[in-house]
Amino acid sequence: MFKEEYFSGLYTDFYELTMSQAYFLSGKKDERVVFDLYFRKNPFGNGYTIFAGLEDAINAVLNFRFSENDLNYLESLGFNKDFLDYLKDFRFQGSIYAFREGDVVFNNEPLLKVEGNIIEAQLLETMLLNFINYQTLIATKTRRMYFAAKGKTVVDFGMRRAQGFAAISGSKASYIGGAAGTSNTYAAKVFGIPPIGTHAHSWIQSFKSEYEAFKRYADIYPDSTTLLVDTYDTLKSGIPNAIKIAKYLESKGHKLKAIRLDSGDLAYLSKKARKMLDENGLGYVKIVVSNQLDENIIDSLLDQNAPIDIFGVGTKLITSYSQPALDGVYKLAEISGRPTLKFSENTEKINLPGNKKVVRVLNEDNNFLLDGVLLNEENENSIKLLRHPSIPFKKTEITDDLKFEKVFYKIVENGKLVYKFPTLKDVRDFSLKRFEQLPSEFKRFVNPHIYRVGLSDKLYNLRHSLIERRLENK
Amino acid sequence: MFKEEYFSGLYTDFYELTMSQAYFLSGKKDERVVFDLYFRKNPFGNGYTIFAGLEDAINAVLNFRFSENDLNYLESLGFNKDFLDYLKDFRFQGSIYAFREGDVVFNNEPLLKVEGNIIEAQLLETMLLNFINYQTLIATKTRRMYFAAKGKTVVDFGMRRAQGFAAISGSKASYIGGAAGTSNTYAAKVFGIPPIGTHAHSWIQSFKSEYEAFKRYADIYPDSTTLLVDTYDTLKSGIPNAIKIAKYLESKGHKLKAIRLDSGDLAYLSKKARKMLDENGLGYVKIVVSNQLDENIIDSLLDQNAPIDIFGVGTKLITSYSQPALDGVYKLAEISGRPTLKFSENTEKINLPGNKKVVRVLNEDNNFLLDGVLLNEENENSIKLLRHPSIPFKKTEITDDLKFEKVFYKIVENGKLVYKFPTLKDVRDFSLKRFEQLPSEFKRFVNPHIYRVGLSDKLYNLRHSLIERRLENK
Repeated sequence: MFKEEYFSGLYTDFYELTMSQAYFLSGKKDERVVFDLYFRKNPFGNGYTIFAGLEDAINAVLNFRFSENDLNYLESLGFNKDFLDYLKDFRFQGSIYAFREGDVVFNNEPLLKVEGNIIEAQLLETMLLNFINYQTLIATKTRRMYFAAKGKTVVDFGMRRAQGFAAISGSKASYIGGAAGTSNTYAAKVFGIPPIGTHAHSWIQSFKSEYEAFKRYADIYPDSTTLLVDTYDTLKSGIPNAIKIAKYLESKGHKLKAIRLDSGDLAYLSKKARKMLDENGLGYVKIVVSNQLDENIIDSLLDQNAPIDIFGVGTKLITSYSQPALDGVYKLAEISGRPTLKFSENTEKINLPGNKKVVRVLNEDNNFLLDGVLLNEENENSIKLLRHPSIPFKKTEITDDLKFEKVFYKIVENGKLVYKFPTLKDVRDFSLKRFEQLPSEFKRFVNPHIYRVGLSDKLYNLRHSLIERRLENK
Repeated sequence: MFKEEYFSGLYTDFYELTMSQAYFLSGKKDERVVFDLYFRKNPFGNGYTIFAGLEDAINAVLNFRFSENDLNYLESLGFNKDFLDYLKDFRFQGSIYAFREGDVVFNNEPLLKVEGNIIEAQLLETMLLNFINYQTLIATKTRRMYFAAKGKTVVDFGMRRAQGFAAISGSKASYIGGAAGTSNTYAAKVFGIPPIGTHAHSWIQSFKSEYEAFKRYADIYPDSTTLLVDTYDTLKSGIPNAIKIAKYLESKGHKLKAIRLDSGDLAYLSKKARKMLDENGLGYVKIVVSNQLDENIIDSLLDQNAPIDIFGVGTKLITSYSQPALDGVYKLAEISGRPTLKFSENTEKINLPGNKKVVRVLNEDNNFLLDGVLLNEENENSIKLLRHPSIPFKKTEITDDLKFEKVFYKIVENGKLVYKFPTLKDVRDFSLKRFEQLPSEFKRFVNPHIYRVGLSDKLYNLRHSLIERRLENK
């Protein structure tokens, strides 16, 4: 459907183009810069974030072009001819470092770093943020649901309420986050995600009786039928009819797969349904629920011992309803070897200057203890201390029982992909496995423990000397 | 970038396909149905909604196909060969009626109606909802900002925080809603929306001094420069430097266009900035503000007499942050001439049965008074009464001073487009003009008046007889 011959360089905020032209016309086009992509707060008051969107973003970087049509458009807006000539041959020739897709990441550490000339690095800003903000948000939201479901299955039913074509990358990100499948057939095909679905109320209504509708469906899908039982009356009609169908299927050597509850009190109804099914020897028939679910409702249902096997989550997942945007930013950290600082009255908003890398510190159980941001030239093995970014007396000693782990990978080098992207399935497996290394105190929903992201002495000192210099200049 | 040779029939919830196959295999494929698309609540507690997404949705309907690749995928999932043959030739052959894009619409009235065979009508459900839910939501959210701005300019700066590719249709919908331009260059090009943008903090930081950065920018864009004044210190550095630049530009026969405030207290800073500019004879320099704006902040700023000319709105607009999904649904209203009812304990959730149309009643001032839902066969000129859907004694008499207006148009007839879509600019103009016919009591943010959507006697009686029949069967 979407044939991407190239990725349009116009997929960007207009000011990236006007700025780039200005860089070009003021002779700055070959200045080397470093930009960091990071966010300032974990979403949802969460204790962690799941990094997603990397592969799509990098593919867009590598195919970022200006077609003749794009250039004609810019010309019609009065862009300079020499600059348009420059854009005609535009290919990203810089380097990109990032966390692996699916990794657990935290606020105020670079997730991705771009090294390049000022124009190529600037032009990518909007697209990188657009891709990574959304997919990271959805992967994180889904991970919360996955966590709340305590081993029960979560599936993505969000397509109809998704923000337009966000449905596609949203379903992909939800799979990384922990969804076991999606109702979005297009995403299922393109990304190899298991497609999930049965029938709607309209199927039931298209027959004179619920029983007839159930029976016809079961005849067509004898081994994969999930019956929606709430069209007329869940307890008096839907479940009794589903039980009859299950018995009918048994008589033919088949098994009813599941029933689905889509309205009413899901805790009460799922318990009633489980009891009615079990009393009829149908312990194998699963219970699927849907209807405005989110991680808190999943948590509450399981807390009430609701015997639910599968949670179909729609709107709240695919739009990340409780917080529909991640506050990811893309900030200049260095230009022509000079570290840059964006000052702010708000201490938390002051960036980390310089060309940096991120390392993770694992404790003796191989679990995540804290992350460290270092200057690029530093060797982590010489780091004995990681410091709080602002408060001088807050520091963590790196003792001999701790070990550093590489988390920041080179993805693109001088315009060439030097990293092999794993399959989506492998990203999901990696992500769920990584999650086990995150101690539980960071996973709880209420007041999660705050994960430390420390600075090396050198970075700390650099930042503070630049802050001091800024304050003296005032 | 996105070359749409066709619109994939897989852009749908998987259950639409399993149901369609079941319709096909149970010999129901030629049954005629009517589906209504509507929503149950205006978003944001609003008193109205702006309908958007129609043209994109209809284009997708007319190009809805299953490619060989799509069919191979379905075959790999075990779909039936005869059904796949049927899908191979799939073309929508039904008819679609809808409000015009940009019109003011209300909850619980059909926005769009599909007549067709049960498979073609069912298969479109997810896609229609996906397109119309999001674009309608964004157009409505933007209209609230447009309304709050009281004639000042609102522009869309949301791309980097948009939910992935939602950025594209979101910018389009925000233009319909009332935004005067967008930072999204891709959408600007494709839809002919004015592109907006100047420079970021990184431009300033790439120079040794703010003054030098401003001057270089002004030299390059002498007639269209907006200077971002908050990189270092808005009042002590940014605005004084901008004033110097404005004077410099004047000396060359040019004019500084605007300054932009992107942090701090925007009410305080905009007043200070206006005063400083005016004292220097720079009354023509406009003030642009951005930073987490929404309709309430715009309202509050203007309430404080903040002298702001242009509001750049990002995250809160493009994600519809305060409510990121519209609850649009698509319900079976008739099958084989039989009106259908989806019963619910919740009275508001019971649908309107039968094949219907919508008309609008205008008062003597040509303003919107109420809408009426009628059975299709009814002539509105014979309607003397419109009734509340549930409460028998609530009715509105249609007196002679009132007149009916056509609001529901035939868009597609037997698979052919029979409606000429206006340009996007015309949709926006139409939408803003229509908005003037909506009395102000429906526009206020706090407790807006509830617009009436009444039923004809015939539809009321049909619905109530079906409800009674359902209750008797229980």
